[in-house]
Amino acid sequence: MRVVDLIRRKRDAGELTPEEIKFLIEGYTHNTIPDYQMAAWLMAAWIRGLTPAELAALTDAMLHSGKVLDWSDLPGRKVDKHSTGGVGDKTSLVIAPIVAAGGLRVPMISGRGLGHTGGTLDKLESIAGFNVNLSLAEFRRVLAKCGCALIGQTEEIAPADKKIYALRDVTATVDNPFLICASIMSKKLAEGIDALVLDVKTGSGAFMKRIEDAEYLAGLMVETGKRMGKKMVALITDMDQPLGRTAGNAMEIAECVEALQGKGPADLRELSIELSAWMFFLGERTASVADGRKLAEEMIASGRARDKFREIIREQGGDERIVDDPQRLPQARSKLDVTSQTAGLVAGIDCERLGVACGVLGGGREKKEDTIDPAVGLEFHRRLGDRVERSATLATLHYNSGARLAEARQLVESSYRIGHAAPPPRPLVHKVIGG
Amino acid sequence: MRVVDLIRRKRDAGELTPEEIKFLIEGYTHNTIPDYQMAAWLMAAWIRGLTPAELAALTDAMLHSGKVLDWSDLPGRKVDKHSTGGVGDKTSLVIAPIVAAGGLRVPMISGRGLGHTGGTLDKLESIAGFNVNLSLAEFRRVLAKCGCALIGQTEEIAPADKKIYALRDVTATVDNPFLICASIMSKKLAEGIDALVLDVKTGSGAFMKRIEDAEYLAGLMVETGKRMGKKMVALITDMDQPLGRTAGNAMEIAECVEALQGKGPADLRELSIELSAWMFFLGERTASVADGRKLAEEMIASGRARDKFREIIREQGGDERIVDDPQRLPQARSKLDVTSQTAGLVAGIDCERLGVACGVLGGGREKKEDTIDPAVGLEFHRRLGDRVERSATLATLHYNSGARLAEARQLVESSYRIGHAAPPPRPLVHKVIGG
Repeated sequence: MRVVDLIRRKRDAGELTPEEIKFLIEGYTHNTIPDYQMAAWLMAAWIRGLTPAELAALTDAMLHSGKVLDWSDLPGRKVDKHSTGGVGDKTSLVIAPIVAAGGLRVPMISGRGLGHTGGTLDKLESIAGFNVNLSLAEFRRVLAKCGCALIGQTEEIAPADKKIYALRDVTATVDNPFLICASIMSKKLAEGIDALVLDVKTGSGAFMKRIEDAEYLAGLMVETGKRMGKKMVALITDMDQPLGRTAGNAMEIAECVEALQGKGPADLRELSIELSAWMFFLGERTASVADGRKLAEEMIASGRARDKFREIIREQGGDERIVDDPQRLPQARSKLDVTSQTAGLVAGIDCERLGVACGVLGGGREKKEDTIDPAVGLEFHRRLGDRVERSATLATLHYNSGARLAEARQLVESSYRIGHAAPPPRPLVHKVIGG
Repeated sequence: MRVVDLIRRKRDAGELTPEEIKFLIEGYTHNTIPDYQMAAWLMAAWIRGLTPAELAALTDAMLHSGKVLDWSDLPGRKVDKHSTGGVGDKTSLVIAPIVAAGGLRVPMISGRGLGHTGGTLDKLESIAGFNVNLSLAEFRRVLAKCGCALIGQTEEIAPADKKIYALRDVTATVDNPFLICASIMSKKLAEGIDALVLDVKTGSGAFMKRIEDAEYLAGLMVETGKRMGKKMVALITDMDQPLGRTAGNAMEIAECVEALQGKGPADLRELSIELSAWMFFLGERTASVADGRKLAEEMIASGRARDKFREIIREQGGDERIVDDPQRLPQARSKLDVTSQTAGLVAGIDCERLGVACGVLGGGREKKEDTIDPAVGLEFHRRLGDRVERSATLATLHYNSGARLAEARQLVESSYRIGHAAPPPRPLVHKVIGG
């Protein structure tokens, strides 16, 4: 088998066999296939696309490039949720305790903020002492004890994805549904789960701005997971404005604690319950999604989800007191209101720009080496369609350093479009695919 | 300027500016842009194609990656011919002496055999002592003295092409008209010529099997050369059967000597005169192509072309006696006839396969490191449409080692298709483009 022939076939829009794709991924992972050949193949795949069989083979090869976790000795179904990312997207930290409290196991491997989006690991690390870098042995211990554990990508999980992602990043082959699907699914399936609920975001704050693109990616992921024997569903959810009331690591943890107490913003609560409900259903904990909703609400009302969050924090070395006293979370020293210059209705929000502004304040990274300030972030006071008076506060910047304050303020100010008409209302869940 | 943005633009079928293309080629030549980014860009360019402006910019950037020769101190127009390659394609060695004898200067930089095709340098090296690796100073001395010099690619000429070609070879991005055009034209224009005649082959022994592909490439090259201020013409010529009567390095030199004496196969003589005529015309030596033909014929009839060949050989250190005594050229020890198994007409020839057979006998390279046996080759006794009796000799293998004789024989045997009808006749020159 010659790599150049496999590149040529994909270049000519032909199909590779599973053996050929395995050869490519194994060779690349073990450094017998050089970067430049993989780069040429990835560009050909980006432009030509992959067949469903190729996509399943690619996902499988990437998945098996490392360790596939096996929890068969632990009783109960293992389920997880994955989101394609957005601004203020914090549902993982609400869902994981709800679903674990409800009797399923959630071995959740999460990521860090990427571009304008936040990341679960960064949020968790705003809790003093919380360790997301557990060994696999520790991961197992916490999962066995709590029914849930929250860690970051390890070296053992899908090393092919790590290597391929780094190459895609510098060869303009990131934004492709096939390659995104293989990347996400290889990591998620390495978690050793039985079912996966996907939250595929669409709108101005999502990677997929257009709903058709979100649906296409969702379809690929659902199909690929099903081919590999997993129960799958994808919810296409709205990201045309931030989810909840805040973006910023510690601020979002506080908001999650509110949601776990049945309080806080309605959209965060509603979406967390909806995703939890699907996890309960696919994990065969409830007979229907409707029953799943009830169970999720019960976990919140009874306080069991909140107790579970406390337990997870404790087991992972964090300061569990933040659950009852969110003031213990890092707080920014200063605040600045951004106000509306005219009266009218909030006609549009450039949600991605709000995410960038949060990063500019220090809440995200522009380069991998950047460190995050967990205390800073944005507080949102107006949603799409809201009426505003002149000088009404649209958002509040929480900051520690004035260095790039003007830039962040300008970004936030220009994110809001005030007009005479409200935009057509968008549902929180646009569509359900698979399931 | 970020390379990843230039890759993305080409990936999305957008256009790069000349400055951006220059940045890419300079960076790659000077190793500040890594192989994997160039590989991704090349694959995107392979699939998306290039605009005329991009192609000219790419050619120009590759041309100026090294030395551009300047002969302005030498009187007379400088012209050259380039062929895309075929089997038995030996016209360079007939044309260069004709055109130099006729008063133009031919600073010819040639290549080696590639795949199933022969190469001018390999042919020349079958003349004992002939040195194709002249320094640029020696190249100038011979050109000044003889009006012609024949050398191989040097390190100074278009280094970007050398580096890019090596990368294309392992990333399945060789066979693309835009990249082929930039590769050929950057090297040829570095010769410092005023006019270039292109011999673009089509048929079973050419790289471009289909005439449309040959025409497309020819059009690109003519257009690119004209944009850069050169006089250009491309002749689409037939390669559906070998040119002349032999394929094999020393055997072809002997055939060229015959042609320079007004003898030898008609097709070789005719095509050499046609290409020379265009060189005379574009080099403003004659007022028309018809006059160019007459001048070429005169150079042969007067013996001046043959004398010029003798002079070039002498100046480049070779044994000039081969011109009057071709028996001094390397001769293979053994011969084997390949005969027809049925009676009929030669209905088809897989000309590429004949080229491969010549390589199998040792007349070409399968790997870069292979050494060539100059003596071996094929002698062709039948042309398309010829009538053959049962057991008539189709071709004769000239060989030194029996190691792969059976394989070569089988290849030659299976190259000829004997049927009941002659194929439609094909002209030697299908079309003239530009001029």
